[in-house]
Amino acid sequence: MQMSKNILTNPSKLHNFMRKVFENYGFSEKDALQCADVLILSDLRGIDSHGCARLSGYTRLLEVGRANAKPNIKIIREKFSNFTVDGDGGLGLVTGPFAMKEALKRTGKHGSGWGAVMNSNHFGICAYHTNMALEQGHIGFAMTNASPLASPTFSKDRLLGTNPICVSIPAGKEDPFVLDMATTTVSNGKLQIAERKGLSIPTGWVQSAEGEPSTNPSELKHKGALLPLGGEQSNSGYKGYGLGAWVDIFCGVLSGANFGPWVPPFVPFLEPKKNAPGKGIGHFFGVWDIEGFMALDSFKERMDLWIKTFKNSNAVEGKRVIIPGEQETLAHANRERDGIPIQEKVAKDLEELSKKLSLDLPF
Amino acid sequence: MQMSKNILTNPSKLHNFMRKVFENYGFSEKDALQCADVLILSDLRGIDSHGCARLSGYTRLLEVGRANAKPNIKIIREKFSNFTVDGDGGLGLVTGPFAMKEALKRTGKHGSGWGAVMNSNHFGICAYHTNMALEQGHIGFAMTNASPLASPTFSKDRLLGTNPICVSIPAGKEDPFVLDMATTTVSNGKLQIAERKGLSIPTGWVQSAEGEPSTNPSELKHKGALLPLGGEQSNSGYKGYGLGAWVDIFCGVLSGANFGPWVPPFVPFLEPKKNAPGKGIGHFFGVWDIEGFMALDSFKERMDLWIKTFKNSNAVEGKRVIIPGEQETLAHANRERDGIPIQEKVAKDLEELSKKLSLDLPF
Repeated sequence: MQMSKNILTNPSKLHNFMRKVFENYGFSEKDALQCADVLILSDLRGIDSHGCARLSGYTRLLEVGRANAKPNIKIIREKFSNFTVDGDGGLGLVTGPFAMKEALKRTGKHGSGWGAVMNSNHFGICAYHTNMALEQGHIGFAMTNASPLASPTFSKDRLLGTNPICVSIPAGKEDPFVLDMATTTVSNGKLQIAERKGLSIPTGWVQSAEGEPSTNPSELKHKGALLPLGGEQSNSGYKGYGLGAWVDIFCGVLSGANFGPWVPPFVPFLEPKKNAPGKGIGHFFGVWDIEGFMALDSFKERMDLWIKTFKNSNAVEGKRVIIPGEQETLAHANRERDGIPIQEKVAKDLEELSKKLSLDLPF
Repeated sequence: MQMSKNILTNPSKLHNFMRKVFENYGFSEKDALQCADVLILSDLRGIDSHGCARLSGYTRLLEVGRANAKPNIKIIREKFSNFTVDGDGGLGLVTGPFAMKEALKRTGKHGSGWGAVMNSNHFGICAYHTNMALEQGHIGFAMTNASPLASPTFSKDRLLGTNPICVSIPAGKEDPFVLDMATTTVSNGKLQIAERKGLSIPTGWVQSAEGEPSTNPSELKHKGALLPLGGEQSNSGYKGYGLGAWVDIFCGVLSGANFGPWVPPFVPFLEPKKNAPGKGIGHFFGVWDIEGFMALDSFKERMDLWIKTFKNSNAVEGKRVIIPGEQETLAHANRERDGIPIQEKVAKDLEELSKKLSLDLPF
């Protein structure tokens, strides 16, 4: 294989490869398929950081025993619309869809369904889970906490992850509205891109170890931290801190998982902190049945009007107004047709896995 | 009465005055009391923009027939946990608590309760409504749309209000966590303060009529717009836009109220837009029963640990880490004891009302 910056792979080949990797690590056929489904959707939607790029990370967690290939996932508490899942150390790629299916089931009986998940691991893109609700004409909701990289306003400590919030809302003729956002100004990935290019970054992305404004993309390597959405206090970074805190409380405190400084790191070479108040990382999922508020057809018509109004508003010179999720839906169509570009570094990871497990490469 | 910058009023006197004002405008005793309850909580919590400072604004809406003093508030659709309320043009100060009570009732039967409200008006501070859930050991949620002052990323048009999101979460020995935040970087009030002081403002607060970055606090008077939380695109303002959009869809599209450019203005001298797709402004309320996820006592203990961990984290020089809602709870205790400071301009408004309605002034 010749290395180039833009290796293209066929989506079904890549999906198949990922599925086999998980099977090789002891996953059941069903769970391996589920994991591959979540990851390929990320690659298709153009969220390159959360698809096959994470595959080797998951396998390393499995190798050091920090993730469980054969989890016994259980509902450990429930009351009407609400329930808590013990993920038994499984990947969020498996525990997430489990909880979302349960939330959908409860929506049929109670109008909405709410699941907190503890003892889990990284669950891929939020939008996979929330989009499960779209198929039934419902609104989907998901959040997850993550290992701490961000500081609350005025703190020097890293206490919050990128802690994303995601809402998927169906439309009629228009594509669905899918808001899938980290509650920090940026995620680590954007810092790494700036670092590789030798660029400085805008203030509002990170702070130094002393909690001072910084434009250095390497700040995280020097005990600095990501800033919550908004950035500095003067630009209302405390609101991003509040949002990240909300996510941490729902995913960590309410579920029985870890929270704040105790959320275990994704990378296996960093040890989880001692005296942890819970198990694993946590997620929170939800579903609302639109029919309880308005006839679904009327809602979809109104959503179409909302989307068209925003899309067709007067744009600044050379730009257009984008609906949350629009670019990802477009990427999905393009990549389904043209293939998925694989970055050189990711291709190397996949090559290593293919050698180790004697699997055909997907490119 | 001698005018000074810090007129102090006794909370119960101010509450009584506001109650009587609403009664004079034709509200039932019960509704007038409810309105005064919502407004006084804002004054007590130190949210000076949303308490008695708004009283004359509400009366002007009533005078021009844009708000209804005797609304026939009805549930017009419902299914299990979910329902939609027609506020019949009433103030949100009345329709909000109506919906929140209904959501609490449904929580008892379904584990959670979700109410969308259409045909309403400004509802005061979100936290009044969400805090109703705290009294029953539940988590409260509220959002409202508002007249458009903010532009989506890359748009020159004003399509979104300050569209706040609010979550109230009970704790044990610690004060509750109350996140009550606009989804714009700042609200209009902060611009007015800078304007009065002749100060320029940081970039990320507003844009010019052409959608360019601006540091001019008067930009809204020149067809400029507020920016969503995050500010410019480079600092992820599209996330704030996404949050504001979520609020607008839940409060406006899902409820049958207006949304986007059609949300009617709070001030009576601006006419609502023609061809409105709905009625009035909209809100969205929710309640989660914690017991469906975890025993309430365990949850409260974990919340206390969360709060203490964040509060006691290492702070930057001269600062301390603040828990969302902490400052407002502190203000509440202080103002309950020391009285509520009334700004000169607000005092004049209240004087006018007292003359017009022959009511004793509360200061």
